[in-house]
Amino acid sequence: MIKQNNLRIIPLSGLGEVGRNMMCLEVQGKILIIDMGFRMPEEDMPGVDFIIPNIAYLKGKEKNIVGAVFTHGHYDHIGAIPYLIDKLGARIPFFAGGLTKAIILKRQEDFPHLPKLNITAIQSGDRVKLEPFMIEFFRQNHNISDSMGLFIQTPVGNIIHTSDFKFDSTPVYDKPTDFKKLEEIGKRDILLLMSDSTGAEEQSHSLSEKTIMENLEIIFKSAKGRVIAATFGSLINRIQQLIALSEKYGRRVAVDGYSMKTNVEICKKLGYIKSQKNTLIGVNQIGNYPDSKITLVGTGAQGEGQAVLMRIANGEHRFVRLKKEDTVIFSSSVVPGNERTVQFLKDQLYRNGVKVFHYKMMDIHAGGHAQREELGELMKIINPKFFMPIHGQYSMLVNHAELAESQGIPTKNIVVAESGQVVNVSREKIYLEKKEVESNYVMVDGLGVGDVGEVVLRDRQTLSKDGMFVVVVVIDRRTGKVGGSPDIISRGFVYLRESKELLRDTRRKVIEIVERSTGSGGAVNWVYVKDEIRNKIGDFLYFRTQRRPMILPVVIEV
Amino acid sequence: MIKQNNLRIIPLSGLGEVGRNMMCLEVQGKILIIDMGFRMPEEDMPGVDFIIPNIAYLKGKEKNIVGAVFTHGHYDHIGAIPYLIDKLGARIPFFAGGLTKAIILKRQEDFPHLPKLNITAIQSGDRVKLEPFMIEFFRQNHNISDSMGLFIQTPVGNIIHTSDFKFDSTPVYDKPTDFKKLEEIGKRDILLLMSDSTGAEEQSHSLSEKTIMENLEIIFKSAKGRVIAATFGSLINRIQQLIALSEKYGRRVAVDGYSMKTNVEICKKLGYIKSQKNTLIGVNQIGNYPDSKITLVGTGAQGEGQAVLMRIANGEHRFVRLKKEDTVIFSSSVVPGNERTVQFLKDQLYRNGVKVFHYKMMDIHAGGHAQREELGELMKIINPKFFMPIHGQYSMLVNHAELAESQGIPTKNIVVAESGQVVNVSREKIYLEKKEVESNYVMVDGLGVGDVGEVVLRDRQTLSKDGMFVVVVVIDRRTGKVGGSPDIISRGFVYLRESKELLRDTRRKVIEIVERSTGSGGAVNWVYVKDEIRNKIGDFLYFRTQRRPMILPVVIEV
Repeated sequence: MIKQNNLRIIPLSGLGEVGRNMMCLEVQGKILIIDMGFRMPEEDMPGVDFIIPNIAYLKGKEKNIVGAVFTHGHYDHIGAIPYLIDKLGARIPFFAGGLTKAIILKRQEDFPHLPKLNITAIQSGDRVKLEPFMIEFFRQNHNISDSMGLFIQTPVGNIIHTSDFKFDSTPVYDKPTDFKKLEEIGKRDILLLMSDSTGAEEQSHSLSEKTIMENLEIIFKSAKGRVIAATFGSLINRIQQLIALSEKYGRRVAVDGYSMKTNVEICKKLGYIKSQKNTLIGVNQIGNYPDSKITLVGTGAQGEGQAVLMRIANGEHRFVRLKKEDTVIFSSSVVPGNERTVQFLKDQLYRNGVKVFHYKMMDIHAGGHAQREELGELMKIINPKFFMPIHGQYSMLVNHAELAESQGIPTKNIVVAESGQVVNVSREKIYLEKKEVESNYVMVDGLGVGDVGEVVLRDRQTLSKDGMFVVVVVIDRRTGKVGGSPDIISRGFVYLRESKELLRDTRRKVIEIVERSTGSGGAVNWVYVKDEIRNKIGDFLYFRTQRRPMILPVVIEV
Repeated sequence: MIKQNNLRIIPLSGLGEVGRNMMCLEVQGKILIIDMGFRMPEEDMPGVDFIIPNIAYLKGKEKNIVGAVFTHGHYDHIGAIPYLIDKLGARIPFFAGGLTKAIILKRQEDFPHLPKLNITAIQSGDRVKLEPFMIEFFRQNHNISDSMGLFIQTPVGNIIHTSDFKFDSTPVYDKPTDFKKLEEIGKRDILLLMSDSTGAEEQSHSLSEKTIMENLEIIFKSAKGRVIAATFGSLINRIQQLIALSEKYGRRVAVDGYSMKTNVEICKKLGYIKSQKNTLIGVNQIGNYPDSKITLVGTGAQGEGQAVLMRIANGEHRFVRLKKEDTVIFSSSVVPGNERTVQFLKDQLYRNGVKVFHYKMMDIHAGGHAQREELGELMKIINPKFFMPIHGQYSMLVNHAELAESQGIPTKNIVVAESGQVVNVSREKIYLEKKEVESNYVMVDGLGVGDVGEVVLRDRQTLSKDGMFVVVVVIDRRTGKVGGSPDIISRGFVYLRESKELLRDTRRKVIEIVERSTGSGGAVNWVYVKDEIRNKIGDFLYFRTQRRPMILPVVIEV
């Protein structure tokens, strides 16, 4: 490996989300990793659990990795660790905030075969030397505690990586944004700012948690029956708000949903969630208190089929049946792609006659990402020479880059990269290298990592549209005649019981095709026979139904 | 059939969209149909083309149908005609505005086997007697011309059906809302108001088309290269705006996309779209003009894979390659469920370096539906005794009902119905009948109408998740031994070429299972053998991969 004196930045996450899941900094032959998360699959990837970063680039360079730092405990930043760590080597030193460390270790328990991680908890202000890098962590406001921005000294210059962040001067159960600290960092001659672009298409300023708290309180004040609040399992701060409001209004709180329960447990133990002694109760104890004394905090605000809120709405929850006096709060936004399931869930709740509050009716949810005003403010404070938008869909990166231009950063000093592209930084210039690194999707499905590829996915899509149609023909090898009636097995195509005629005609057609192909005597070309069945039966079924099931011929000679 | 003296209202459309696609009014044994549209399938209905109203209730009552009226030409109001008309009888007299009629007839050309429709064009103000009903059509503003609200005299009382509508005092190329007419109708002692609920969760007033026009003009003014505007194919008014602006700024207009081209053709012929003689050109002529003299209006603003805009973004369009100076306008909202494909499309456009404008950045699209302010205003003008929210998801209906309550309509005079429920109206009261009519989904897939049901859909979902796995075993009937090696055909499960070991182990397992089942001698229970293969191979594959493909055993005795 040639020692590079320039700094190279290599985002390894999935298409369009540049740097959100994983990123490498490389200089003088040494590599620093920032985050190792996964992302959720696209809609055209049925059956896929999630997508992890492609680390082909790091193959053979494992010994050059000086360490990995984790900005916060969300799964899109830590979730891929169990799938990558045995390839990268568990000896790599990890650094993360206290809560982030706890969440990583908790998750690691689900993978008992993996080696123990070497992980050090850090606090805001801590400095870690991983030659030739020096990383200083600084507290950022996001929607999970212990979120850290990174100040990184490199031989080429000083870099800032904001991680996911927003500015909040009046947060609840969290410290306000430390502008003094940011200003101090801004004075350190920053060569490159890498900044969160998630909110770069939103025009103004993210909502303060104070507003959210006030609006939630309005709902608590007027609620007569139970309060059922759904939010993200990782939204620790929101859960704390709901607990505090419940205490103020004399309600016990039951937490339900696996991920949320796990997180609350961790946070209670480490002091990130505070509650009075008797506040938290088990879901099975809900019935022991009057409805007006109960809050249920659960998962499922995205309309996920098996999550708490959907089970409640469908009357399938073990301990909760809705009553007209209940109030349901969606304290979350709708993740793009979930609009229809959330609508379905809302409708189900309304059918139960309960009161429903969601973020479109009232500000009862704030996102965790800075919007244009805040992004512009940060750029001014940091005043970097170079700018690189990270963490966002491509359109957001471009809009963020345009914002930087409008604030006076010259076009040539801004680089919009995609996953797999390599950003090259010297003191004089920043540019995209011509050669890209491997960056196609690595999909995880069950125990398989990376074994679901284009072919398997395309087959799944085809199968889902018009199903499949297996034709089994037994052929007498001496006569070339079909023995008996061909077997047909079909699923997802037509309702077989009501398609007797179609099946009979198809069987007849199969015999015709086979015997025409084998009839001329001599050696039979079975590949040709199968192709004939596939094409002709495909056309025949399309003609009769205008559907194209996947045709799978099985020919057995006896 | 018992002659009913009360009026019965039977919404026949899909779940939650009460009355949008089709509705029946029944009194004194006679039935009036309002609209016959389809809706798009849900996400968990792969391969389904669309959902049409279930008309089981009308079976045997065909001769009682006095006529069908169509409120406007959108497919969710007329698209099911070709699938229902041969069941209902083509003799039924149809009534529709001029453009609506033209669109219905054009679509009917795709179904040449169907009998000719008996359809009469009506205009605003026309009265049609279909005993015991009298229908008066009145013009409504929506986003397609010739949209009609319905004033219906019945023996029980006067009814208003708003159809889809909004108030617009400053529309473009359309007449402003005729409040005088509405006020006049409001004085006719209205027993029941049925009103569009689509916008009932939006807090204020729909945007006027004037605002849209002004903002589009700002874009046209500054555009240097081509303007490429994508919108819905049915948004005739918007297309007219884009044509007019192009003329003002010296641009020719090419219209692209099948549905849009068809609609423009109809509208040109009938005078609903006006353009100067040389404005419209073919898409293939785009290259004959300077870029600054070209507007392309096309479909695909929802990110549909094969529509015009996606082909352009992917560099696959026959005549258009994007250049940096081009401007792309999304003059449409995002239909819920399409968020991710639209984001993908936007990203692709940004990758081409073009300027992109969408409705979140600027008001360049207005929906066609009244919001709460307008809905409240209409209620005041009409001042009905009874109120029934229609056209919307259940949550919207409930919010619309609450609005009616807040405006003084007593709770007992408001009814929120779902498809399949029957609303019973007399002069004294309105209520939901206890007995419901059949209302499950009727899915259209290719030529099949209603033959895709629960079973087929469930199979498609299963197939899409982990694929399928066919095991073919040939068994010697005398010895019970497996002949040769079992054949395995699998798709969408694992990549077979890289799974040789798994397949070998599975084959061995299959032989074991079969020979254990047949080994004991005596008659073999083949159903049992198949079940054994299905269960044990299923478990085995899950153990090895944590995936659950659909297992299909084929056993052949020779």
